[in-house]
Amino acid sequence: MINIGIIGAGRIGKVHAESVMRFVKNATVKAIADPYMNDATIAWAKEMGINEIYTDYHKILEDKDIEIVLICSSTDTHSKISLEAISAGKHIFCEKPIDHDVNKIKEVMEALKNSNVKYQVGFNRRFDHNFMAAREAVKAGKIGDLNILKICSRDPGAPPVSYIKVSGGIFLDMTIHDFDMVRFMSGDEVEEVYAIGGVLVDPAIGEAGDIDTAIITLKLKSGALAVIDNCRRATYGYDQRVEAFGSLGQVAIGNDTDSLAVISNADGVTAEKPKLFFLERYMGAYTAEVNSFIQAVQNDTPTEVNVIDGLKPVLIGLAAKLSLKENRPVKIKEIEEQYGL
Amino acid sequence: MINIGIIGAGRIGKVHAESVMRFVKNATVKAIADPYMNDATIAWAKEMGINEIYTDYHKILEDKDIEIVLICSSTDTHSKISLEAISAGKHIFCEKPIDHDVNKIKEVMEALKNSNVKYQVGFNRRFDHNFMAAREAVKAGKIGDLNILKICSRDPGAPPVSYIKVSGGIFLDMTIHDFDMVRFMSGDEVEEVYAIGGVLVDPAIGEAGDIDTAIITLKLKSGALAVIDNCRRATYGYDQRVEAFGSLGQVAIGNDTDSLAVISNADGVTAEKPKLFFLERYMGAYTAEVNSFIQAVQNDTPTEVNVIDGLKPVLIGLAAKLSLKENRPVKIKEIEEQYGL
Amino acid sequence: MINIGIIGAGRIGKVHAESVMRFVKNATVKAIADPYMNDATIAWAKEMGINEIYTDYHKILEDKDIEIVLICSSTDTHSKISLEAISAGKHIFCEKPIDHDVNKIKEVMEALKNSNVKYQVGFNRRFDHNFMAAREAVKAGKIGDLNILKICSRDPGAPPVSYIKVSGGIFLDMTIHDFDMVRFMSGDEVEEVYAIGGVLVDPAIGEAGDIDTAIITLKLKSGALAVIDNCRRATYGYDQRVEAFGSLGQVAIGNDTDSLAVISNADGVTAEKPKLFFLERYMGAYTAEVNSFIQAVQNDTPTEVNVIDGLKPVLIGLAAKLSLKENRPVKIKEIEEQYGL
Amino acid sequence: MINIGIIGAGRIGKVHAESVMRFVKNATVKAIADPYMNDATIAWAKEMGINEIYTDYHKILEDKDIEIVLICSSTDTHSKISLEAISAGKHIFCEKPIDHDVNKIKEVMEALKNSNVKYQVGFNRRFDHNFMAAREAVKAGKIGDLNILKICSRDPGAPPVSYIKVSGGIFLDMTIHDFDMVRFMSGDEVEEVYAIGGVLVDPAIGEAGDIDTAIITLKLKSGALAVIDNCRRATYGYDQRVEAFGSLGQVAIGNDTDSLAVISNADGVTAEKPKLFFLERYMGAYTAEVNSFIQAVQNDTPTEVNVIDGLKPVLIGLAAKLSLKENRPVKIKEIEEQYGL
Repeated sequence: MINIGIIGAGRIGKVHAESVMRFVKNATVKAIADPYMNDATIAWAKEMGINEIYTDYHKILEDKDIEIVLICSSTDTHSKISLEAISAGKHIFCEKPIDHDVNKIKEVMEALKNSNVKYQVGFNRRFDHNFMAAREAVKAGKIGDLNILKICSRDPGAPPVSYIKVSGGIFLDMTIHDFDMVRFMSGDEVEEVYAIGGVLVDPAIGEAGDIDTAIITLKLKSGALAVIDNCRRATYGYDQRVEAFGSLGQVAIGNDTDSLAVISNADGVTAEKPKLFFLERYMGAYTAEVNSFIQAVQNDTPTEVNVIDGLKPVLIGLAAKLSLKENRPVKIKEIEEQYGL
Repeated sequence: MINIGIIGAGRIGKVHAESVMRFVKNATVKAIADPYMNDATIAWAKEMGINEIYTDYHKILEDKDIEIVLICSSTDTHSKISLEAISAGKHIFCEKPIDHDVNKIKEVMEALKNSNVKYQVGFNRRFDHNFMAAREAVKAGKIGDLNILKICSRDPGAPPVSYIKVSGGIFLDMTIHDFDMVRFMSGDEVEEVYAIGGVLVDPAIGEAGDIDTAIITLKLKSGALAVIDNCRRATYGYDQRVEAFGSLGQVAIGNDTDSLAVISNADGVTAEKPKLFFLERYMGAYTAEVNSFIQAVQNDTPTEVNVIDGLKPVLIGLAAKLSLKENRPVKIKEIEEQYGL
Repeated sequence: MINIGIIGAGRIGKVHAESVMRFVKNATVKAIADPYMNDATIAWAKEMGINEIYTDYHKILEDKDIEIVLICSSTDTHSKISLEAISAGKHIFCEKPIDHDVNKIKEVMEALKNSNVKYQVGFNRRFDHNFMAAREAVKAGKIGDLNILKICSRDPGAPPVSYIKVSGGIFLDMTIHDFDMVRFMSGDEVEEVYAIGGVLVDPAIGEAGDIDTAIITLKLKSGALAVIDNCRRATYGYDQRVEAFGSLGQVAIGNDTDSLAVISNADGVTAEKPKLFFLERYMGAYTAEVNSFIQAVQNDTPTEVNVIDGLKPVLIGLAAKLSLKENRPVKIKEIEEQYGL
Repeated sequence: MINIGIIGAGRIGKVHAESVMRFVKNATVKAIADPYMNDATIAWAKEMGINEIYTDYHKILEDKDIEIVLICSSTDTHSKISLEAISAGKHIFCEKPIDHDVNKIKEVMEALKNSNVKYQVGFNRRFDHNFMAAREAVKAGKIGDLNILKICSRDPGAPPVSYIKVSGGIFLDMTIHDFDMVRFMSGDEVEEVYAIGGVLVDPAIGEAGDIDTAIITLKLKSGALAVIDNCRRATYGYDQRVEAFGSLGQVAIGNDTDSLAVISNADGVTAEKPKLFFLERYMGAYTAEVNSFIQAVQNDTPTEVNVIDGLKPVLIGLAAKLSLKENRPVKIKEIEEQYGL
C-alpha cells in the first residue's frame, strides 16, 4: 500500500483525494495539508478516511512513510513546493502549470536531474478515454500523416474576475491544456504560433487585461497545421472536441453527455448538452492520471507527462501571449532563447 | 415524348402532374380529368401547362395519343377505371390500393392476363432513396440472412374522421404501405400476422370503428420475423424508419430532415424534426416511381410494383384486421382461401 | 461500516464483490462462499481484501456481524437460500430470477411477510444511467401518455448449449430483463402477451428445445402497447435500446460505446460498436443497484426492486412461453390463476 | 417565358443548362455558345432542347430575344464578357470569381453603375438548403451575438496541376467560396486575415507555386473571430461544414450524404461518406441561385449576390495570399488601398 500526501485541499485536491480513496487500489491518502484548513474540510477528510490533517504541508514532506505527494496548491506555490519535495525525496504529481515563470520551471528541471524523483504534471485530458481513443487512432496510422489538427475548447462560464487577474491570462490558464493536447494528439512539437482574440463575453475581463475569446493557429515541426478555438462561455456546457485530419482520413471526438436520451417532440429532436464542466467531463481522467503515476512509481518507469511536457505548453502560451500583444506570428524558439533554453 | 393522362386531380393527382411536368424527361401530361373539376384546379392545370381539362375521364381513355394513365381517383373507383383503361389499351399506373375488395383486384388481374398493358401500383416508398439504400444493403448480403425486420411508421396527425370511415381501416389505409415495405425489404412473403391495437389518439376514431395505434408482428416464409408499429399522431412529424437485422449485422434508416442544422444551447442539442408528412418525405419517390414506370413502358420490361405486389398487402391487411377482431394470429392462406387464391 | 456476505463466487458474484470493495462507501465484503471455491478465486478474493472465504454459505448466514447477503449462486438455489437467509434475519439482495417456479417465489413472498428483512431482486437495468434518464423523462410527463414502448435487446453471442438447457428458455433467461424494463419504463402492468420466435442463430439451440430469436408484443393495463425484440447474436455487440412514444413525443436511448471516436475514411464514417456485453454496458448499474439496496437497509425504506417486481417478469415469461407453444395470446391472469395468485 | 443564353459549355455551363431546362419554370435556354463546341456537346444540347448552338458568344449578345446571360466561360474571360453583356443590356449571372484582377472587377462595377443590368455572382453555397438554415438561425438571433465562426472546406481530391497553375492559387480558387461564406454567415465584413499553409498532399502543387492545405483566421468588423481550414484531399469525400458560435449558443451544419443508411457490424457502426463533390452536394443550390436571379430580374429587385459580393472575397483572397507570402496578418484595407478602393 503506497502512502500519498496531498498538498492543497481546494477543489482539485479534493477531487484527487476522493479519486484515490475510492478508485485507486494499493494506494491511500495518508495525510492532507492546506494553510486554510477549515472545519468543513476537516469533516470531509475524516469522512474520506484521511486521518492526518495539517495546515503546514512540511509535515507531509517530513513523513518518512509518505512516498508520493500530489501538489494541488495555488499555482504560484507549485515550483517552490516541487523543489522542497524533490529535496525530501518524494515522488511528485504536480497540478498544471508548474509555474508561469519559465525560470522557476528550469529550477525544478535542474533539481530533478540530480534526483531519482518521479515527476508528473497534471495534464488530465491525456487520460480521458475519448481523447485516448483518438490518440490511439492517430498512432495506429488510421488517419495516415497528420495534416490538420483542430481543437475546440470552451468553458461553460467565465471564472470570477478576481481569478482572471491572477490566472496568467487565458493562454496560460485555459489554452495551456489545449497546447498540451496539440502535442499529445500530434506526437509533434509546435514551432510557431499566432493568436487572435477579443473580449466578447464580459468587459470586466478586458478591464482585467485579459481576453475571453480566442483562435490560435500553430505550425508543427512536421509541417502539419493546428488550430485551437477558445471561449470562456458556452451556454450549452463544456465544449471539448478534437478533430485530427490526415492523408488517410479523420478521427473526431464529440462531447460526452450524462445520458444518451434523445427527446423528439414538437420542438425538435433534442439530445443532452455536453457534461457541465471539467469535473463532470474528466472525472475518470483524474483517476487514470494518478493511477498511471502510481504505476510509474511502482514499476520505476518514466511518467507519461514529464517535466518537459509541463514546460512546453508554458512556452507556447507565452508565445501566444506575445503574438496577441504584437499581432504577429511568434516562434517558440524566440521564447526559448529569452530563457536560455 | 410520351403523353400521359391523369385521372383524379386531388392531392396525389396534382403531385404526379407537377412531378411529370417538372422532373420527368420525355413525358408530358396531355390531359387531366376530375368529376369535381373547379376553377382553382383549372387555373393550376393551365399554369402547369396542361391544356386538356375534363370532368369525364373517359375523354382520356378515348384519346389515341395518350399512352399512359395515372389513376389517382378515389380508392373505390381504382379497379373499375383500371378495367376500362385495360380495355382501352392504356398502360396504367394506379395509386394504392387497387381495391379493398379482393374480388375486384382479381378482376383486374384477370383482365391484365389477356392484355399487353403495363400495370404498376403506387407503393412509392420502394422508390425512396433511403429505403432503396437499405434494400440494396440487404440484397448485397451486408446483413447476411435477415432475422428481424422492424418498421416504424407514424403519421404526424390523424385524418378527419369522415376519411377514417371510408378508409378501410388503419391496416388497409396506413399499414398497407408498411406491409409492402416488409415484402420489399425482405424480398420474402408474409405467412402469418398478429395485430394488437387501441384507440389512444382520438376517441372519435374508435367511435368510427377503427383504431389509431397498433403493433403488428409477422412471420415470413424464410422464418424471419417482422414487426410494424403505427400511430396516427407523432408530435414530432412523420416518423418513417426501418431496421433490418441479420446474421452479419444491421442496416437502419432514420428520418430525413429539412436541414442538418443542429442548435446547441441551454436547452440541449437540438436537430430538426423529421420532414412533416408524405409529400415532404417522399417527393423524390413520387417522381422516381413514375419515371420507373415510364421506363418499363418504353423498354417493354416488367414494372417494379406489379398487380401481385398490389394484391399481397391487401391480403395481409385483411388478415391483420381479422387478427385484431378475433385476437388471434391469422395465416395469409386463410384469407387467400376465402377468395379462391 | 456494513458487512456484506456474498453467496456464489461466479462471474456475477465477483462483479458485486469488486463493485462493493471499490465503489461502495460504508460497506465491505466480509465473507464470500462458493461450493466450487478454487485457488484462483481464493487468490482473487484475497487481493480484493476479502478475508473470509468459505465453501459452505451457511457460515455466512451464521455470522452475526454480517447484515446483508448477496445471493449470486445458481438460479435453482436462489429461493432456498433466500428462505434460509430470511430465517437468519439477513437483508437479501438476490440475483434474478428468484426462481423459475412460481410456487417457490410464493414461499419467499410468504416468508418475507413475517419478517423485517429487506429484499431486492437484481434487475440491474433499472439502475443504468441511460434507462434511468428515459424513465425520468416518462415520469416527468415529457412524452405525455405512453402509447408505444419498444425494447430492443440482443446479446452479442449465444451462451453454450449446456447453459441454454438449464436456462429456463429465452423468455425466463434473457427476455425476463426486458419484461422488467417494460414494467419499469411504463410504470404499468402487463395484461396479455403474444410471442413469435425461431431458431435463426444456431440449430443446436433448437435441438435443446429453445429458440434464439423472438418478438413479443404486450398489452398494458393502461391500453398502451409494447414490443420487445430479442436475438442471441448481434455481430456488432450488445444491442440494448429503448423507445417510449407517447401523446407528446418520444424518448429514445441508444447504445453506449467505449469512446465517441468517429473515423471518416474511404469506407465511410464509422463510430464504435456498442459496448461488448452486460459487464461492460451495465458496470455502473451493478454498483448503483447495490448502493441503492444498502441505502434502503440503512434508512429502512422500501427497496427499489421488491419481491413482487421479482415475481411479475417470471409470470410474463411463463405467459410468453405458453404463447409461443400454443401460438395464441396469453393473459397474465391465466398464469396467475394456475398458481392461485 | 424568359430566354436565357449560356456562354461556356464546360462542366458548370452544362450544370446550369440542365438545371434551367429541368427545374426552372418560366425560363428556357434559347442558346449556348462555346469556342470549343464539339459533337458531344452539340448532341447533349439538342437532347436538352437547346436549339441554338454557337462557337461565338457574340451571337447570344446580339439576340434581342435573350434577356439573361449566364457567363460560365473560363475565369479570365468573365470580366470582358461581363462588360460586353452590360453594353448589350443583358442581365448577367456570372460564375465566380469575376476576375482575379481587382482592376477588371472595378471596370465591371463602373459599367454597372450606368446601366439597368442585374448582376449576380455564382456563390452557390449561399443557396444550399443547409447553409441557408444555419444563416436563418443566426439572423433569427438563435445564437445571440456571433463570437466564433468556423468553416471546414475540403475537396475530395486535388485538380490537375495544369489547373492549379492558372487557378490563381488556393485562396482565389478554393477558399474564395469560404471567404464568401464568412460574409454570408456573419452578415459582417472581414477586416484582417492571417494564413498558414503547406504542401501536404502533392509536392507537384508546391512546385506549381501553390499550397494544398491551409488554415486562415479572420477578424471581423464586429469583433467576432473566424477560421477556415482547407485541404485539397479528404479521402472520405467533400467535407463542407460550418459552425457559428455565439453568446446564446451554436448552430452547426454537418455533411449531406446520399442516404441515411447506417450499417452496424463487427467493424463498427458506419454511416455514409459525405456526398462526393460540389455537383453532388450543391446541385439544389445551383438551381436555387439561378431561380433567385430570374426572380430578381422579373421583379426588378436587387440580386442576392451582387458585384460587391463578388469583389470582397477576391480582396480577402489577395490579403490571404500576401499574408502567407510574408507570414504576417494583413488588413483588407491594405489591399483596398492598392486598388484605390
